[in-house]
Amino acid sequence: MKIVIVGLGAIGSSFAQALTQAGYQEIRGIDQNPETCLKAEELGIVKTAQTEDDQALSQADLIFITLHPQAVAPYVESKQDLFKSTCLLTDVTGIKRDVMDQVEAILRPDLDFIYAHPMRGSEKAGIAGLNSAQFRGANALLVVSQRNQESHLELIEALYRAMGFQEVSRVDAESHDRAIAYVSQLMHVLAVAAVNSAPNCEDTVQFAGNSFQELTRIADVNAPLWTDLFLHNQDYLLESIEAFEKELVRVKTALKNKDSDQLQDAFQASTQQRREWYVD
Amino acid sequence: MKIVIVGLGAIGSSFAQALTQAGYQEIRGIDQNPETCLKAEELGIVKTAQTEDDQALSQADLIFITLHPQAVAPYVESKQDLFKSTCLLTDVTGIKRDVMDQVEAILRPDLDFIYAHPMRGSEKAGIAGLNSAQFRGANALLVVSQRNQESHLELIEALYRAMGFQEVSRVDAESHDRAIAYVSQLMHVLAVAAVNSAPNCEDTVQFAGNSFQELTRIADVNAPLWTDLFLHNQDYLLESIEAFEKELVRVKTALKNKDSDQLQDAFQASTQQRREWYVD
Repeated sequence: MKIVIVGLGAIGSSFAQALTQAGYQEIRGIDQNPETCLKAEELGIVKTAQTEDDQALSQADLIFITLHPQAVAPYVESKQDLFKSTCLLTDVTGIKRDVMDQVEAILRPDLDFIYAHPMRGSEKAGIAGLNSAQFRGANALLVVSQRNQESHLELIEALYRAMGFQEVSRVDAESHDRAIAYVSQLMHVLAVAAVNSAPNCEDTVQFAGNSFQELTRIADVNAPLWTDLFLHNQDYLLESIEAFEKELVRVKTALKNKDSDQLQDAFQASTQQRREWYVD
Repeated sequence: MKIVIVGLGAIGSSFAQALTQAGYQEIRGIDQNPETCLKAEELGIVKTAQTEDDQALSQADLIFITLHPQAVAPYVESKQDLFKSTCLLTDVTGIKRDVMDQVEAILRPDLDFIYAHPMRGSEKAGIAGLNSAQFRGANALLVVSQRNQESHLELIEALYRAMGFQEVSRVDAESHDRAIAYVSQLMHVLAVAAVNSAPNCEDTVQFAGNSFQELTRIADVNAPLWTDLFLHNQDYLLESIEAFEKELVRVKTALKNKDSDQLQDAFQASTQQRREWYVD
């Protein structure tokens, strides 16, 4: 199977490495940065990598488009005349409604595009985030479109498992974006706002325990990517922020009123819910 | 050295274990729960444990009062007539101004009390949270009072190191409580409110990655303890929540206005600050 990976960033390069480790040999990379291409070739995670490679695109059986959300549809539109009609396309974007709408609006009728979301990422941008080990035991989501062929969905699922993913679930775009707004995007909002609200005092971190380090880890973000992800999920993310604000005000009001019953209620509710979700 | 540990909860029992492992043999425990006492004796982390033990208190060279903040001063007041004048007292509470004020107001003039804060805790309450290994490499703070003798501070510092703590720093009560409001208490507020704002949907967690699991871990709290900690640090914690709210509104407004420059500014600020604090 001839595979092309478009975009050798943290996810694209890690996919190249994971697929190489899984035994795939015909992997060609495309990245706009010539240094990234050189690095990928040196590391042996692709057979070749170039800034443009229309020949590889025209021969590809499978193309991973590992670009930021807003770049996916424009790339497909600009290159799809080259693709074989049996060529399968897939992405890795963290939001789905907008990407699907944009791609479906322009996609050649004979092509199939499987919308996928690998649920693991690095705060490191670019090929510096190369780390195929991060996929071991991770989850992935496939957001199914009406035109998707079952065999294509099965193929992408099998490739994810070959790269080390554990659970590969199917979901619709609405449910995906609504859930992601909460479990991923809101958590990033909280970490970012928490770090940005730090007192202006050099030795703050001297007082910090492990929970502070954990909770603020995702405040180190790839700013352009996350701006893009947030703007493509504005409605659901605003809903999530507002639901959070209500609970924050509940705690704050209890504290203001020195209402220990209300505080204990909030703590007991969160404790019970967290234990339903996880056994750490 | 004859040591008494009052309160064999998650910290008290772990201290008993850590001190036993460090070679101390004359450790007696006191806990209001007879089953806890039995358990502590069975585990061999104390020589004896009883619900009351005035004899041990009267012979003690060092008493660890590992009780909740509001219980510390009343306990000292009720028992200090028994203590030898050379007996050294110390606590483990997570807030300091109120505890110090309360204890200093009633403490026998010939006694010394070292206010300490081991910066590691379990979400498990009681002796179920027994785990001396958690102290390895952890930080501890000593909040110095005017009457503290240098040799007593040195002794407590040495005992913390013997239990596995790495950094033992000294700090004043105001700075301690202000910093703790941010690095610890605010993080708990955020985790609690985040979990309590979860969409009412069973499969939410199916969409979650590692960051969600990490960030919500501390939403599993010992409700009475944290209520007590919050109420004793109300002023600084409210300040911290309000500073956080401003940053949250900044992100929310940028999102509402689809202002990608503002979003990127917030992300870049948090990324830079986080990297100044930690190299993960």
